[in-house]
Amino acid sequence: MSNDKDLAVQSIEWRDDYVRILDQTYLPNRTVYSDIRDVGRLWEAIKKLRVRGAPAIGIAAAYGFYLGIRDLPENSFNSFWVEVERIADYLNSARPTAVNLSWAMKRLKNTIYAHKDDPISDIKERVLKTAQTIHKEDKRVCKQIGENGQDLVSNNANILTHCNTGSLATGQYGTALSVVFHAFNAGKKIHVWVDETRPLLQGARLTAWELMNAEIPMSLITDSTAGSLMKQGKVDMVIVGTDRVAANGDTANKIGTYPLAVLANEHEIPFYVAAPLSSIDLELEDGEHIPIEEREGAELTTIGKSQIAPKKVQVYNPAFDVTPNHLISGFITEKGIIESDFKKKFTELKN
Amino acid sequence: MSNDKDLAVQSIEWRDDYVRILDQTYLPNRTVYSDIRDVGRLWEAIKKLRVRGAPAIGIAAAYGFYLGIRDLPENSFNSFWVEVERIADYLNSARPTAVNLSWAMKRLKNTIYAHKDDPISDIKERVLKTAQTIHKEDKRVCKQIGENGQDLVSNNANILTHCNTGSLATGQYGTALSVVFHAFNAGKKIHVWVDETRPLLQGARLTAWELMNAEIPMSLITDSTAGSLMKQGKVDMVIVGTDRVAANGDTANKIGTYPLAVLANEHEIPFYVAAPLSSIDLELEDGEHIPIEEREGAELTTIGKSQIAPKKVQVYNPAFDVTPNHLISGFITEKGIIESDFKKKFTELKN
Repeated sequence: MSNDKDLAVQSIEWRDDYVRILDQTYLPNRTVYSDIRDVGRLWEAIKKLRVRGAPAIGIAAAYGFYLGIRDLPENSFNSFWVEVERIADYLNSARPTAVNLSWAMKRLKNTIYAHKDDPISDIKERVLKTAQTIHKEDKRVCKQIGENGQDLVSNNANILTHCNTGSLATGQYGTALSVVFHAFNAGKKIHVWVDETRPLLQGARLTAWELMNAEIPMSLITDSTAGSLMKQGKVDMVIVGTDRVAANGDTANKIGTYPLAVLANEHEIPFYVAAPLSSIDLELEDGEHIPIEEREGAELTTIGKSQIAPKKVQVYNPAFDVTPNHLISGFITEKGIIESDFKKKFTELKN
Repeated sequence: MSNDKDLAVQSIEWRDDYVRILDQTYLPNRTVYSDIRDVGRLWEAIKKLRVRGAPAIGIAAAYGFYLGIRDLPENSFNSFWVEVERIADYLNSARPTAVNLSWAMKRLKNTIYAHKDDPISDIKERVLKTAQTIHKEDKRVCKQIGENGQDLVSNNANILTHCNTGSLATGQYGTALSVVFHAFNAGKKIHVWVDETRPLLQGARLTAWELMNAEIPMSLITDSTAGSLMKQGKVDMVIVGTDRVAANGDTANKIGTYPLAVLANEHEIPFYVAAPLSSIDLELEDGEHIPIEEREGAELTTIGKSQIAPKKVQVYNPAFDVTPNHLISGFITEKGIIESDFKKKFTELKN
């Protein structure tokens, strides 16, 4: 990509013996980096959405896992393993919906177990290397998703997206936004409708910021505006990311994705999910089984120092919804685009 | 209604020689009344949504019109009439979508013209009386809408609503919320899902406040949450208000209403519009002809003192959308419920 320099925001960076994250809760007003040296602070960073986006959570948690095991005693594998499991469970508890988190934990545990006869100090080194590999792989996967997906984007397309799925949400480039970046860099004239994405405004704060950095034409809208834009023929395609895809293609993503899919279907607008294969969870048969995180009401009732709803108001604040497979035109993965027979093709590509 | 005292918030009050409005931009944090003594400040109050809700705008504008003509010279009807038209056009320019505003202006002008041979001082008195009549009629209409509509509400119903359509938006009781108040007072167990209604958060700030005042069970949600609630069977009916209904039943209402109607239709959930007959504009054939107000981008990019999107971001901020008649189960009017043949029955009821 020609403007790698601008797009290549590093939301997560390993620096010899600590993780540096770009704290997304301060964007777009301030660019604050935070150096994290222990697993507790990493857990807090995920929980409070300082680092967010399913792939970025997986990467950060992998480094956090290393921070957690780094100083454990090295005398017995069995006692080491007890702690390994405890730390993995602890990190998993920070965000229950994103599969990348549990996937990263599982991969690191498998790595450890496969080398259980090695000296524990060697195992620790191997865990750090694996975390770095997860990070590097994610960058490559995001680039491939962008390259594959940009074929779907026609010249002069109006693309609608939800939440943030860019460099901030991943190792680099992003998932849905990687498609946007690659289409733009391929010389296509495009315009992006950016849903602000209540309650935490990842669209307004993060996606708008990334697109403006890259000088890609865009307009910010409320989440409620997408419907009338579609009705007026002003949306040519919808591309979103995902936190977890079930084996049948049912897709969990940021709350508000399901209504967009229903609206896109009503207006016969293609609806694509940009999904690294790591976000596809073949162990879940369908979307009914995806755990949906419910978050605190304060996310709706306050912004900055403003109280925007009555005190003590009852709030219901689920972070995700599930879009059934029949509303999805296709999945854009690092190994190609899947537009039918989701379960069969997921299984083939993941093996 | 048994708790008239609590519900009877007076959002607009005529006090001998000025209008007192409850300034809704300060709610829910502060209850600020503002005394308005000239037409310019009344125009500003409508423009800035200090007074809002289609019926309340009509009432406030009627009083504002009187404030505007009160001190005009009384020597010639012709020069008086020139000023009358100028003041009506001026007030109309504050909000282009709400039909109640232009309807009130037209009614007052008709009253004046019908008495053009009377002394101008008498005409001025008549204008004030007509404004007071508009106010009184609106209270009666809202009560009738509530009484008619509450028949549609079953016991244990989960009702979803959007924006604010309560006492704050009308002379009293409201339109869609009047149905809620009357169903609750009839002893039905109900629960209301309150869309926060971005960007100006009329749901979070005003509807939640009114329902909590009346002790009606409710939960605040983001606008994006309605879809998954419907999918889970947690919404039994949707009731919204309207700013203008075309002759064929196409309905302009707060941005976000159209997606709710599409979602309700997808899930076979009844979708009702509470509409005083004054909001039905038989001169507009269909929704294509309803003017849609576009408002400034700052409504999306700032809340209180918080900047929640990058500075200089491009914003598209339409205040309303149009729901086509085929997605509407029925209209709840002061003269009964209309569930078919909208155009024919609108014409009958309005005559």
